Amino acid sequence: MSTVAAGPTLDAVALRRWLDGEHREIREQVRERLVGLDLAQADGISRAEYRELVLGWATELGRSGETALGFPRRYGGEANIAGSIASFETMAHGDLSLLVKCGVQFGLFGGAILQLGTERHHDEYLRGVIDVTIPGCFAMSESAHGSDVQNVHTTATYDPATHEFVVHTPHDGAHKEWIGNAATHGRVAVVFAQLITGEAQESYGVHAVVVPIRDADGNPTPGVRIDDCGDKMGLQGVDNGRLWFDQVRVPREALLDRFASVAGDGTYTSAIENPDRRFFTMLGTLVQGRVSVGGAAISVAKNALTIAIRHALRRRQFTAPDGEEILLLDYRTHQRRLLPLLARTYALHAAQEQLVAKLDAAFSGDVGERARRELEAHAAGIKALSTWHGSATVQACREACGGLGYLSENRFASLKGDSEIFTTFEGDNTVLLQLVGKSLLTGYKDQFGDLDPLGMVGFVAGQALKDVVEKTAVRQVAQTLVDVVVPARDDDSEMLDRGEQLLLLRYRSERVLASVARRLERGIDEGHPAFEVFRACQDHVLAAARAEIECVIGEAFAARVAACEDPVLKLHMERLCDLHLLSTIEADRAWYLEHGRLSPSRAKTLTRTVNRILNEVRADAWALVDAFGIPDAVLRAPIGLLDQADRTPGL
Amino acid sequence: MSTVAAGPTLDAVALRRWLDGEHREIREQVRERLVGLDLAQADGISRAEYRELVLGWATELGRSGETALGFPRRYGGEANIAGSIASFETMAHGDLSLLVKCGVQFGLFGGAILQLGTERHHDEYLRGVIDVTIPGCFAMSESAHGSDVQNVHTTATYDPATHEFVVHTPHDGAHKEWIGNAATHGRVAVVFAQLITGEAQESYGVHAVVVPIRDADGNPTPGVRIDDCGDKMGLQGVDNGRLWFDQVRVPREALLDRFASVAGDGTYTSAIENPDRRFFTMLGTLVQGRVSVGGAAISVAKNALTIAIRHALRRRQFTAPDGEEILLLDYRTHQRRLLPLLARTYALHAAQEQLVAKLDAAFSGDVGERARRELEAHAAGIKALSTWHGSATVQACREACGGLGYLSENRFASLKGDSEIFTTFEGDNTVLLQLVGKSLLTGYKDQFGDLDPLGMVGFVAGQALKDVVEKTAVRQVAQTLVDVVVPARDDDSEMLDRGEQLLLLRYRSERVLASVARRLERGIDEGHPAFEVFRACQDHVLAAARAEIECVIGEAFAARVAACEDPVLKLHMERLCDLHLLSTIEADRAWYLEHGRLSPSRAKTLTRTVNRILNEVRADAWALVDAFGIPDAVLRAPIGLLDQADRTPGL
Repeated sequence: MSTVAAGPTLDAVALRRWLDGEHREIREQVRERLVGLDLAQADGISRAEYRELVLGWATELGRSGETALGFPRRYGGEANIAGSIASFETMAHGDLSLLVKCGVQFGLFGGAILQLGTERHHDEYLRGVIDVTIPGCFAMSESAHGSDVQNVHTTATYDPATHEFVVHTPHDGAHKEWIGNAATHGRVAVVFAQLITGEAQESYGVHAVVVPIRDADGNPTPGVRIDDCGDKMGLQGVDNGRLWFDQVRVPREALLDRFASVAGDGTYTSAIENPDRRFFTMLGTLVQGRVSVGGAAISVAKNALTIAIRHALRRRQFTAPDGEEILLLDYRTHQRRLLPLLARTYALHAAQEQLVAKLDAAFSGDVGERARRELEAHAAGIKALSTWHGSATVQACREACGGLGYLSENRFASLKGDSEIFTTFEGDNTVLLQLVGKSLLTGYKDQFGDLDPLGMVGFVAGQALKDVVEKTAVRQVAQTLVDVVVPARDDDSEMLDRGEQLLLLRYRSERVLASVARRLERGIDEGHPAFEVFRACQDHVLAAARAEIECVIGEAFAARVAACEDPVLKLHMERLCDLHLLSTIEADRAWYLEHGRLSPSRAKTLTRTVNRILNEVRADAWALVDAFGIPDAVLRAPIGLLDQADRTPGL
Repeated sequence: MSTVAAGPTLDAVALRRWLDGEHREIREQVRERLVGLDLAQADGISRAEYRELVLGWATELGRSGETALGFPRRYGGEANIAGSIASFETMAHGDLSLLVKCGVQFGLFGGAILQLGTERHHDEYLRGVIDVTIPGCFAMSESAHGSDVQNVHTTATYDPATHEFVVHTPHDGAHKEWIGNAATHGRVAVVFAQLITGEAQESYGVHAVVVPIRDADGNPTPGVRIDDCGDKMGLQGVDNGRLWFDQVRVPREALLDRFASVAGDGTYTSAIENPDRRFFTMLGTLVQGRVSVGGAAISVAKNALTIAIRHALRRRQFTAPDGEEILLLDYRTHQRRLLPLLARTYALHAAQEQLVAKLDAAFSGDVGERARRELEAHAAGIKALSTWHGSATVQACREACGGLGYLSENRFASLKGDSEIFTTFEGDNTVLLQLVGKSLLTGYKDQFGDLDPLGMVGFVAGQALKDVVEKTAVRQVAQTLVDVVVPARDDDSEMLDRGEQLLLLRYRSERVLASVARRLERGIDEGHPAFEVFRACQDHVLAAARAEIECVIGEAFAARVAACEDPVLKLHMERLCDLHLLSTIEADRAWYLEHGRLSPSRAKTLTRTVNRILNEVRADAWALVDAFGIPDAVLRAPIGLLDQADRTPGL
């Protein structure tokens, strides 16, 4: 029952290098930059002061070129998407108001100009985006349609007489809500509105137009009304606001026209004929935002774990019979609370890295329709699971630090308050998992790709389901099903077989998917209204989505560990990967038992195996958080600092 | 698949009366009082202003007699313990800084004077406690010993030459930490310290002495150092502080001497000889604090659910094929997120009511050793499960309200920040569940009652285990075990049998307990060090504790519903009770499957049954939160107000 595992010690420096990976230099540079910003300035200042401080920081980063990595070279960038996300992820160890401000300015606003606009817009805005002389907004969400962005009610009606678009908020529920940069700093806004043109005043769906919202003196432009969202649970340094437009006129050229344009006479043209598909193509170019938020949530989890695990390796409570007080991390309950979260953080790090590489490839060249759809689904799913993981980890770590975790100086207050909204923004997690489910059910088939979650019901009713299921999940599942109940054994050796672990995850994903597809089909066959059938299966669709994303995460971690070239490092990472995969399976063991894929005795062996590995990973815990490389000046929690210890305690 | 259940409508007014129960008048009075306080005054003010506002409110409540209910009549109270907790629970719907301030002043400080002191102390302090002319502290926790309060290092050394106690902080880790009322307002503190007296300078364990900490001008008294804990995640209106004592002298009479006294010559006497037992007796008298915090957490959950469920019955998102947008609560995922939490809140309400009645009985007369120990265990366990439930519910409700839930005006920011510490204070939940586990393992047997969680290991090593297990759990389990695997059926009728539901909970509790007892025994038999054996089983002990408390909660709810005299109300409550019990069993179905108590097919039926009941309970949702009776002026979240609706929508 020793708490120290046998074998060579885990080297935190080597591990950090391995984790940092390809973008090591960028990450190191951002770490230094964050140290230089003196983040403690934000403590205890007013909301108004905080907003100005954050604007100043963002401007400093913008002018240093730090936040321009992802933009084209001709505007001062490096056209390095993966590097820009690595930079963003690393920045997420610091002040999250600054992070979100940068996300709004460079990612959402700048990204919309870059991805939805054409050269004219790039020339006009991108330099001002990068050096923050043009603070801008990404005005998509509306009060009444937070998640259902395809049905926003703001209109942009083309007036051929003046060659202008008239941007208008038709009723109060259609005002733009939660818009970052709107309350104080924004000069222009990319406004998403229903485009109406032609003699018949036909609507062509949601498009983006650039609308000035403040004049040079900072006053709202005519017809624009701006409100402050006011006090929030966190992110007080971000000036979220609300926007109303009263017949605001902008020139025809204000339309971001990469995917569709309106001629002087009002004729609408687009290379993408189907309006649903057009909408999702526009949204798809913004997938980078979801990838970024997911990455930021993983960084937040790293902060929380660094604090809680260092604390648990210093803090002693209750006395053992030999007279020495016990370190918190030597309690089984404490290991159970923290170490599976730590392993999962590593797994998500690997999945995120893989996702970013795919995103970068998609930007660099044509990766094909299927790969693009898979990218979108994985971005949505990993964003959902990463941000839920971030919330759960901050919560568990706060509790694991007891009263000390409740003091603001130990950072959980802001980690919690600031990152709480990650599960909601850039797509509510539940809605995102439905998108993943849809993507799985349609088997990436082109003709179904443009359906929204409810549109899918129509598709199901259209009897195409059997066909789709045939071609995707069921066939594979049929093969997997050959391998039925595994007889119980008394030893646990097989539990550590990587192939078997991954097969269990994959088996679950495919079987849940096949089962939900059959339920949808049966419901329709029995004559129930398609909508009711879908609603009754909704949690089942989400379970399928979640199971698939668990596969993606587990496979990414396993692959990264398998590719590790340092044999000692690999040994430790293999063990951490075991912990992640087995505790994931353990958490879902009810399902495996219900489906005869684990025997009761094997399920109990699984729990014992996880406990044994926990005891081994505990010996690596100090190095595992050290390798996240969060500088003390950025982490800032007194109980979590590296330098607090004159030795590495508890090892 | 209709969302409206058949049968008569649930009457929110009748339900509220039923929920309010015996202390209805007190609850109604507190609701009115909270409305009168104008809680919105706390919004946006500084920490210093907030502290003064809260002191003013507490004084107003104190002078009105509202917070004196639990004190003896001769000091202006009503000796009504149950009523005073009902009052506290209701107050928890309002400002939680005010609640905690009251908890410190009237509950902890006043409670210590009342329960640990004698008539002299009562006469000297209780009137000042009640009218808040003597703001006071309960100085137990120390920086280095947050949970292990039996091992605090502060000393109170008796000096027979001057008939004084010398109170002293021997090193920095021994300073008093997190002490409410210390930073600004406290005049005196009940200080828990190791009592040392006699020629041999013998230590008699932890005792409480009253120490003045501020003079009439509000300056620290000589030898007392006071620090402010500073910024916290929440409860900013409570002035938590730190206390150091440098040889502070107080008269011999300052010892709260109900359970032990020191004569003028330094002779120590106590009716309770065993120092461990003496300590736990002193702590035991403070069990009221845990009961109060648990009740407050249930009220917090009620606030969060009222907001989220009303919002989900007004907010529509995405359009159904018939053209109408869908209410959030008509989504299965939304039902799954909120309604089991709602059912559990009702169950905890019932368990809390039962616990309060037992506490009241214990105060009113001698209930016997066994009942007293059971009360302590249930108070610890229900506090742990209620406060975890409170945290989980606030989190789920915030997410269910999306971005609107992130705005401070909708209250989740303060519900979250203020109640976050409930899982830690008045006993860390994990430590409390260990106490429950210990209590179960020792079978309430007197000779083992005074062992701390680690002391239990000694007891186990002392070979008494077989004897204990024999007398408690195993015998009952042996009977239960006769009823082995239940054959799978296709219908779900039996799932709705109340006896069967409760038997499943009871079966789990007893079997987990027997199994952990056997593991402890086997570990010792195999010659492993007792401490290591205990550490390896720690999570198993906690599982046993949790399973037992789930039984207590489920049984309390079932009993309360069974006793309901209104047949229509009863019908609806039976269904809610089904939801609670079945979703509790569903959450643990892995265990039931592993132990052959549910077949895979029956487990799947269970999930289907829960889904069906969710759809029925959804029709009751509006009334179920209405019945919590939280006035709009107290709830204050714009999206959660009753009066926002000119009709009851979504029904």
